[in-house]
Amino acid sequence: VKGGGTFQRVGVAGAGSWGTALALVLQARGYAPVVWGHDAQHIAQTNATRENRAYLPGVSLPPELSFTASVDDLRDCELVLIVVPSKAIREVATRLGSIGLHADALLLSCTKGIERGSGLRMSEIIREMLPGHPIAVLSGPSHAEEVARRMPTAVVIGSDDTAAAQSAQEALSTGYLRAYTSDDVAGIELGGALKNIFAIAAGVCDGLQLGDNSKAALVTRGLAELIRIGEKLGGRTETFHGLSGVGDLVVTCFSRHSRNRLVGERLGKGERLADIAASMQMIAEGVPTTYSVHECARRLGLETPIITQIRALLEGAVSPGDALRNLLSRDMKPERVG
Amino acid sequence: VKGGGTFQRVGVAGAGSWGTALALVLQARGYAPVVWGHDAQHIAQTNATRENRAYLPGVSLPPELSFTASVDDLRDCELVLIVVPSKAIREVATRLGSIGLHADALLLSCTKGIERGSGLRMSEIIREMLPGHPIAVLSGPSHAEEVARRMPTAVVIGSDDTAAAQSAQEALSTGYLRAYTSDDVAGIELGGALKNIFAIAAGVCDGLQLGDNSKAALVTRGLAELIRIGEKLGGRTETFHGLSGVGDLVVTCFSRHSRNRLVGERLGKGERLADIAASMQMIAEGVPTTYSVHECARRLGLETPIITQIRALLEGAVSPGDALRNLLSRDMKPERVG
Repeated sequence: VKGGGTFQRVGVAGAGSWGTALALVLQARGYAPVVWGHDAQHIAQTNATRENRAYLPGVSLPPELSFTASVDDLRDCELVLIVVPSKAIREVATRLGSIGLHADALLLSCTKGIERGSGLRMSEIIREMLPGHPIAVLSGPSHAEEVARRMPTAVVIGSDDTAAAQSAQEALSTGYLRAYTSDDVAGIELGGALKNIFAIAAGVCDGLQLGDNSKAALVTRGLAELIRIGEKLGGRTETFHGLSGVGDLVVTCFSRHSRNRLVGERLGKGERLADIAASMQMIAEGVPTTYSVHECARRLGLETPIITQIRALLEGAVSPGDALRNLLSRDMKPERVG
Repeated sequence: VKGGGTFQRVGVAGAGSWGTALALVLQARGYAPVVWGHDAQHIAQTNATRENRAYLPGVSLPPELSFTASVDDLRDCELVLIVVPSKAIREVATRLGSIGLHADALLLSCTKGIERGSGLRMSEIIREMLPGHPIAVLSGPSHAEEVARRMPTAVVIGSDDTAAAQSAQEALSTGYLRAYTSDDVAGIELGGALKNIFAIAAGVCDGLQLGDNSKAALVTRGLAELIRIGEKLGGRTETFHGLSGVGDLVVTCFSRHSRNRLVGERLGKGERLADIAASMQMIAEGVPTTYSVHECARRLGLETPIITQIRALLEGAVSPGDALRNLLSRDMKPERVG
């Protein structure tokens, strides 16, 4: 069934690995999505080779997917997935606001991050720049490389608007992608954003070769800190126990695909952040998220032992060994208050 | 300080990898532990080579550790760690009951399992066979291979008796082993026992090469099932969010050291349980625990989707591919009730 009949035309803003993988999901569901990217040369190359060599190499792109460098080509889309780095979301939302989308076009944010300065979640920025549209968010343990190869994956789609969540769910549910719905938008976005910080910490543990026991202790503390901060920022505990909390946290802390874990591993081996960033093709969202969440937490007077150490490590103010020692050797106390 | 002054003489019942690693912790803390094993030949070889070649190869054993095949040698111990496979615990507790331990000797169970038939936890069996003794339990993400190599590890020690938990904590806390205390004995034991079942499931995912996204979804569901069943069997939710729940679950589902995960991986590749068991030196506790917990759950009328599929897989009643399909493709529904 062509898109379950819900949408005539669908688009994706963002031609990175995750945007392309989600476009492939839409195509598998019977749609012919248009994918917009800001880099004309990258788009031209992708169209010519039918492969997103920069961000999703080795996956051939069927003819139903079209790539464009003109954001106007998203104008008639009734569903627009927004899949750009968090630092670009405000600008991209502004551009989408200028092209004259249908007033009822559904906007689905698939970006994981918290804006610096404002402390806003991605859907809050989208709502601010594109008021009136139904908005939903998508998160969960979903490496683009695996989704693009049709490996079984489960995600969660959240919206205040039940019909919007269900429409997005229908548009993206295929044999290999299962989408659950939720009304905890804040929890879903916070889980997806926060876990990247703890993935950096887990990577530091790997880089220092501290072993699996240490990493398990760190991930346990990370989940507790994620839930504590996530609740204070408006999410529900039960959400953090689901796909966009525990699920995303464990895959990011243990997977070879994770860029955030890799940044941590390289920091753990003694590399400097600037050198790591310069050598990476894609953004590791955990880095800006560490700063933005740390700022939010300080504003609210919250204790964030792991986030604080990771920020100090990113800034070069502590060595990786000391950062982990500070985290793994806190005072002995009963576990209930630990 | 020699054992913080708490105990004059300490012992370990069980000369496997975990018993030996814990004996090394006691030695690092200043004790000269006696380790009892039931296999005289294995004990003689270990004493002769100063290496537990069968269970902990490559780790040299200092002279402070003595190994014995005579259970009577544990008689004067004021602290006895019980570190035997779950199926041997009743017999070993019976033998300990016959040697005339001090009435106030502290018994610390480090075994993860649930007895078949009775559905009893290890500490309940010990209490039944050795009434009157203070009893504590130890669990958490702690691969013996890493503890024996002094890699940083955090565990949790639980007891109804605060003084007992603190004495055990003192006896085992070293620079590389951090022990937290708790009064949720049931939760600690259940977390440690149940996670082995979900580690088998995670291993099946690996064996089928389903990818990290699937595994994350499965671990998320596994934690939810662990908490749901664990609560019904008497544990506290907060305990399952700690080291003997999330912590132990993630290390077991993702670690190369885990025997339970490996059993699952080999099942996933199509091997039969009998062949896997015949080729393994050590017990994978998840196998008997699957049966014992499934029995408990049925008695209580609890739904256990993952445990039920793993039991069917162990019995050869379902293929690994079908077992995972049954778990990963349940009806779409809002995440809250999922």
